[in-house]
Parts: sequence; structure tokens; C-alpha cells
Amino acid sequence: MEAPMSEKRPLILITNDDGIEAKGVHELVKMIEDLGDIVVVAPDSPRSGQSSALSVGIPLRLTLVEHHGNISFYRTNGTPVDCVKLSINQLFDRRPDLLLSGINHGSNSGVSIVYSGTMGAALEGCIIGIPSIGFSLGSHDPNADFSHCREIVRESCRKVLENGLPRSVCLNINIPAIPHLKGIRVCRQAQGYWTEEYDHRIDPHGKDYYWLTGHFMNLEPENEETDEWALAHGYISIVPCTCDQTAYPEIPVIQELFATK
Amino acid sequence: MEAPMSEKRPLILITNDDGIEAKGVHELVKMIEDLGDIVVVAPDSPRSGQSSALSVGIPLRLTLVEHHGNISFYRTNGTPVDCVKLSINQLFDRRPDLLLSGINHGSNSGVSIVYSGTMGAALEGCIIGIPSIGFSLGSHDPNADFSHCREIVRESCRKVLENGLPRSVCLNINIPAIPHLKGIRVCRQAQGYWTEEYDHRIDPHGKDYYWLTGHFMNLEPENEETDEWALAHGYISIVPCTCDQTAYPEIPVIQELFATK
Repeated sequence: MEAPMSEKRPLILITNDDGIEAKGVHELVKMIEDLGDIVVVAPDSPRSGQSSALSVGIPLRLTLVEHHGNISFYRTNGTPVDCVKLSINQLFDRRPDLLLSGINHGSNSGVSIVYSGTMGAALEGCIIGIPSIGFSLGSHDPNADFSHCREIVRESCRKVLENGLPRSVCLNINIPAIPHLKGIRVCRQAQGYWTEEYDHRIDPHGKDYYWLTGHFMNLEPENEETDEWALAHGYISIVPCTCDQTAYPEIPVIQELFATK
Repeated sequence: MEAPMSEKRPLILITNDDGIEAKGVHELVKMIEDLGDIVVVAPDSPRSGQSSALSVGIPLRLTLVEHHGNISFYRTNGTPVDCVKLSINQLFDRRPDLLLSGINHGSNSGVSIVYSGTMGAALEGCIIGIPSIGFSLGSHDPNADFSHCREIVRESCRKVLENGLPRSVCLNINIPAIPHLKGIRVCRQAQGYWTEEYDHRIDPHGKDYYWLTGHFMNLEPENEETDEWALAHGYISIVPCTCDQTAYPEIPVIQELFATK
């Protein structure tokens, strides 16, 4: 199986975690279709909250859905990371020049990057050496208006195609769901956590079950260095993210802890 | 639903990604059962490669399997992260003093932390402020010998119960599957990636399918600072890991990139 490509034009791989039917990925394609040859490889249904999960116990399928001009759409039965790994292995005879994930329906700011399938795919690109960007819009509406995302999407793609990204780094770009944006802030992930709240119900057979709910608890809402602050104040947030989870400043602390019996 | 607990003894939450039947989690319980009240909440079947995935589209079940003395076993139909979130919300009236994940059948060194359900659970503990440790043995054998893990498991649990861990940091402890260990090395995650290799087959109906295979490509096998080096040379590796994925040193680089049109 081969995707169309040309030595002269950038090869751009696109995936998402909302699935191939989601509006966000189709809007993303339309925004950048003139920038290169586009291959979309997306899950066959929503995979929100899939993080960097991959399929180890089930075989994967890869199906060409549509091909017109310089754009191909494939679907898989896998996770966003599966989409990246499988397409890199099966579809291309060269590395894509750029990997895009999204545009996600819903923000992936703060600690949400840890759970996000959108960012799982971007981190996967980063691990295997492809400049990668995850895009998320701050609205879960399936029919959300993505039009105001166009400028930052095109600007970031052009800049990253031209300059690349530092090794082991990808970009997490969140866009507020408001028409008039104040600008861009390059920032860090806000500290916080999702409250563990479950909606506890009893099924018709008298057994307990639990639906995940909850909300994000921002531990530093006033801190202007954070992505949450930027988004709450009408800015696009860009967080450079790393796939190296080593807590470097703490290495001496832990060495000291284990130096004594 | 309530788990047994006492104000006087540490409360220790244990989960894993190999499922509640796996030998590794039962061996872990035996190694530390005198250190506190133990509540095991584990998936009902293997969840390897689940990373920090959580269940957003299916309701969760939580079932008491066994309770004797100071030890309770629960199973869920969720991921390792679901086990942590759901049990924190439903089982306890106080925060556990320690979260342990494992002992995994198979190593989780280098970039494998990104995909590991074992470490997904440990990172979840870390996000919500519980001192957390993931343990992995370098053998996938379901009947692996875990006896030589006992010393490092008890030492690390005692030290972390006594001293806690720095904020937003958990420990990724890998133990080689060899009887005579040389010692402990506190180190960083080795740079590398898993090769994308898929075993491509044709099903009885003539359609393609793909099994994930591949091996880890270590980009710095001679570097003594890395966990891969430690494990290859007979040492236990301890990597302090953070749930903050911001690439701090690159913030100015990306600010510069977006400062110019």
C-alpha cells in the first residue's frame, strides 16, 4: 500500500483522536492542503483519553477511505499512536516532514496532555524524529467553528516546516473557542489535576457502575506563565512538550535518598 | 464501598497493568504486606501498552474479589489510570500514603515509560499528590522469579513512606531478571525509540491485517547515565519521572520562533 508523494513537496501526516468522521480533522486538512502532500490516518471512531496507548493484543486494519488530488484518507481500528506507527511502517518510503494531530474537539491544556490521544500522537511523532504539532480547540461541540484557527495553524505549520523543532520536542497548541483572539503565548503546562468524580449508578440488575466525570483543578490560576492562564485570557497557548519524562533536577535528590540504608 | 484502614498504619494502594491474575502483583503484595494496610485495585485482564489511557465512553465496574486480614483485592474493567482514579474516589476516606504499580512482567525503561500502563498508574498517583513507584522486572515470563526484587521493593517503599517524594515526581524502578544484582543506579531515561515493525498478514477473507512487533533502538547504548545502560550491566535502575511534560529549556527557542512573522 502506498500513499501518493512527491520529492518536491512536503509530506504531511495527519491524525487525531476524535476519529476520521470528526469535523476537526477535515477542517485541518482544508487549512493546509496547499502546503504539501497530505495523508490522513485516523481512528475509525473516537479515541479520546487514549494517551499514548497502543494495541498489543489485537491486529490492526488499515483501509484507504478516499483519495483525491494530493490528499488521502485512511482509517484504522487502532489508537492515535497506532495510526502513527502503522502508517510510518506501511504507507511511506520516506519520513513525513510534519505530523499534525487534531484539531481536537476540546482543549488539551495543563495536565490533560497526559491523557490526550491528540498529544499521544504528537509525542509519538516526536519520539521517532518527525516535527509534530497537536492542535486543540476549546469546544467539544461536534459542529464547532474552527475558522479562527486557520491563521495559527498555517503559521505554525509553515514555521515548523521551515525550521524544524528541537530534538525530542513537539508543540501543544490550544486555541480558545472565541472569535477574537488576543495573540499567542508560548508557555508552560499549568500545574493541577482532574478531580476524581464518578457518577455512581445502579444497573437494572442491581449492580453498581460508575461514569467518569470531574473537572480540572488549576493549582495556579493567576500564574501568567501557564497555558491555562493564556487560554482563560483569550490567547492561543503553545507549550513545547518533551517525550523525556526524566525529572532531571530531582536526580541528585533521589540519589541521596538511596545512598543511605 | 469501603476498604479497611487504620489511622495508625500506612494505607498502600497497589495496581498494575498485567491484570489482577498476574503473578507480579501478588508477589508485590507478599513483599510488603507488613508495611501497612494494602488495597489492590487492578484491571480484570491485561492492559499492557495502555499508557495513561482512561475510559470515557464506558461505565466502570469495581468488584471486591478477596479480603483477608489487612489486604483487599478489587478488580475493575478499566485501565490502570481508571483503577487509581476510581479507587481514590470510591474506596477511601483518606489519601493513600503510597501508590505502587507492578511488579510488571517486562521492563519499562527508556521511552517505554510513555506507553507503559504500569507507569501511567504511577504518574496518575504523582499528579494527584500520592508518592508513587512503578516496579518492572526485565522478564515477560508469566511465572518469572520475583524473589530478588524483594530487597529493592522493601527499601524503596520504606524510604518513600518515610521521606515522601518531591512534588510532581514518581519513581520508575526497573529490575533486571538476573539473580545477582550489582546495585542501584539513579539515572535518566535513555534516548531511543521502538522501531515500527508490523507483521503483515492476510486473513481467510483475503484482507490485510497487521500485528505490532518491533524492538527498542537505544540511541546511546554506551552512556552510563541512562537506565538502559544500568539494566544492561546488571544494576537496578531508578528514574525519577515527572508528569510535567513542558520542555522548559526550549520555551525561549519556541518564543523566538513565533516572535517573527
